[in-house]
Amino acid sequence: MQATDPVANLAALIRCPSVTPAEGGALSLLDNLLTPLGFKVDRVMATEEGTPDVENLYARIGTQGPHLMFAGHTDVVPVGDEATWSHPPFAAEIAGGEMFGRGAVDMKGGIACFIAAIARHVEKHGKPQGSVSFLITGDEEGPSINGTSKLLEWAAAKGETWDACVVGEPTNPDQLGDMIKIGRRGSLSGRITVHGVQGHAAYPHLADNPIRGMLQLTHALMDPPFDTGTDNFQPSNLEVTTIDTGNAATNVIPSKATASFNIRFNDTWTAETLRDEIIRRLDEAAADGALRPDRSPVKYDLVWADRPSHVFLTRNNSLISSLSGAVAEVTGNEPKLSTTGGTSDARFIKDYCPVVEFGLVGQTMHMVDERVAVADLETLTRIYETFIERWFDHAIA
Amino acid sequence: MQATDPVANLAALIRCPSVTPAEGGALSLLDNLLTPLGFKVDRVMATEEGTPDVENLYARIGTQGPHLMFAGHTDVVPVGDEATWSHPPFAAEIAGGEMFGRGAVDMKGGIACFIAAIARHVEKHGKPQGSVSFLITGDEEGPSINGTSKLLEWAAAKGETWDACVVGEPTNPDQLGDMIKIGRRGSLSGRITVHGVQGHAAYPHLADNPIRGMLQLTHALMDPPFDTGTDNFQPSNLEVTTIDTGNAATNVIPSKATASFNIRFNDTWTAETLRDEIIRRLDEAAADGALRPDRSPVKYDLVWADRPSHVFLTRNNSLISSLSGAVAEVTGNEPKLSTTGGTSDARFIKDYCPVVEFGLVGQTMHMVDERVAVADLETLTRIYETFIERWFDHAIA
Repeated sequence: MQATDPVANLAALIRCPSVTPAEGGALSLLDNLLTPLGFKVDRVMATEEGTPDVENLYARIGTQGPHLMFAGHTDVVPVGDEATWSHPPFAAEIAGGEMFGRGAVDMKGGIACFIAAIARHVEKHGKPQGSVSFLITGDEEGPSINGTSKLLEWAAAKGETWDACVVGEPTNPDQLGDMIKIGRRGSLSGRITVHGVQGHAAYPHLADNPIRGMLQLTHALMDPPFDTGTDNFQPSNLEVTTIDTGNAATNVIPSKATASFNIRFNDTWTAETLRDEIIRRLDEAAADGALRPDRSPVKYDLVWADRPSHVFLTRNNSLISSLSGAVAEVTGNEPKLSTTGGTSDARFIKDYCPVVEFGLVGQTMHMVDERVAVADLETLTRIYETFIERWFDHAIA
Repeated sequence: MQATDPVANLAALIRCPSVTPAEGGALSLLDNLLTPLGFKVDRVMATEEGTPDVENLYARIGTQGPHLMFAGHTDVVPVGDEATWSHPPFAAEIAGGEMFGRGAVDMKGGIACFIAAIARHVEKHGKPQGSVSFLITGDEEGPSINGTSKLLEWAAAKGETWDACVVGEPTNPDQLGDMIKIGRRGSLSGRITVHGVQGHAAYPHLADNPIRGMLQLTHALMDPPFDTGTDNFQPSNLEVTTIDTGNAATNVIPSKATASFNIRFNDTWTAETLRDEIIRRLDEAAADGALRPDRSPVKYDLVWADRPSHVFLTRNNSLISSLSGAVAEVTGNEPKLSTTGGTSDARFIKDYCPVVEFGLVGQTMHMVDERVAVADLETLTRIYETFIERWFDHAIA
């Protein structure tokens, strides 16, 4: 198999039905592509009670620094109603210049191109002037517990260190070259329960309606804004994602109300300072009791959900300039350096080395008829290949 | 059977298991008690599609005015977990001076006493100096569709008119003689749906969170207060009884949110003017859009629930003074004239004649171990008997 052809690489990857957390043959395929190039390939199973076992892959060519990591995932989201796809989601059919398939852009396409890029590099120059690694997980679209985070721990434990990383997620809103992600907002979620006393709506003095307190608390989370944005980030934004009481009887005052919220926050905050601010707002609103008939304090519980995603911003000039220079050289576009959007596995990698993200155009990700322009695969491969050359030149100079 | 004994009357009534809407033998029992006294008894079946058929009873003694109505219901609420009762709920066992049984105070006890009162009146004076009627429904604890409302229509259609009515619901908070109800607040319920656009919590500009608008609308319903109360009524009070979104995913902005509210309103308002005020508040808050990022108007629907209960206040001096005079004469207590609490079937009767409510002590109504002090049954019978005499004296004078 010609690893230098990103179209062939992607077609083979799409044909592996690796719906998260299934391996689906995708990691074996990478093994078969990378080993002949000179990579040493490890297949790493990660387990944790209560979560599905996940297989991951780590592959390295070279033994010296500088060490460049390419990170990604072969797992894909479910296809939804397969009957609504124009082309079967695991067939990699090409029509109208586009290849159809689940994972085409998110993100088997990115992996296919980086493999082609390093294969071309090896073909032209032999082994790189340092090391290149692939850190590939099967748990990015799932709970992200047995994936990138554990694979990094595993690699670090055996002494691996890296100087820079590119994550191949689809970062371009409209066309290839639009956008490099140089950071991500953090994400923090919580759940509030306000306690009251059930009773008859005609005798409110014998009851205590928790909805009054809940309105105050959720209002305090939404207003005023947490900040107005920073040099590299848009303003932090909190959304109350649900409020629930579940009381079907209109003549009954309910005994409790619950709400969940999620905030995407910028580098004004750390997860810790933001938690403190949220608690301060809730406590202030609770103490005020303004909507309550006797203005007594609101009784509430707050539970933080899961682990927060920490905010990060990469300021590594050689990494950013090598990549944006490669994008400009190949596409003629000056890519925007952005921190928008959701979280990605880069949030785990940033604790080990500088990390940026650049991949295909994301428009069809997670949708029916996910697809990629075939021409984009060649362009992205050339960008990655140019980037590899520029980065090693920078790093060694 | 001695209809003059309220204790025997009530024991026989409790032994009829007339859990709403079942007749349970209770109306047949009344028939057997009232017919020998000279009442003409009609059993009236009421039906409406989608609701259970309900049997009701109308009984009248006398053919001339003035015409006094006694209104009540023989249906009772379910017993709940029968094993938790100290005495079986349909056995009418007496222990410690109290008779136990479902309906003891709400309101078979009131009916038992009024029958004893009119039986004693007939025994002493012969037929009353006018007419006395019983308007007894089997659908007060249920949907109240095939009960008092339809029975009144049936009676009015055959030419019945009344000069005054006493409803025998339990009105006394602590002891017999505490309180006569001379009116009731109205009740109005509605359901709001706020429409948004579902989306990812990291991309709020591509979504539209309906919770923001819902907070504004529900806040506008709670604040400011609708009024500060009137001479005879406490302030109108609105409770938001539920807010629901049902969104389990913390990273998803939901597409809609719903809320229900119920307002208990005084004679500052009619159901119609209050509806207008609620719509005015909702529209004003919706137009403002203060919590929304672009301040665009909130899109919402409002659906009014069921029929409203209209507010009423009875100002008929001869009815109120006859009853409060009888209470004072028998108990030595000056009863409070009140309009507190929930709705009752008096809301239907007030369209036909002046109506007040007076019965037993309500503390155990709807509870396990519902019970009545046996001594109260004799006291209430003497109050009703005294009231009948005073009212006819007033009405004829």
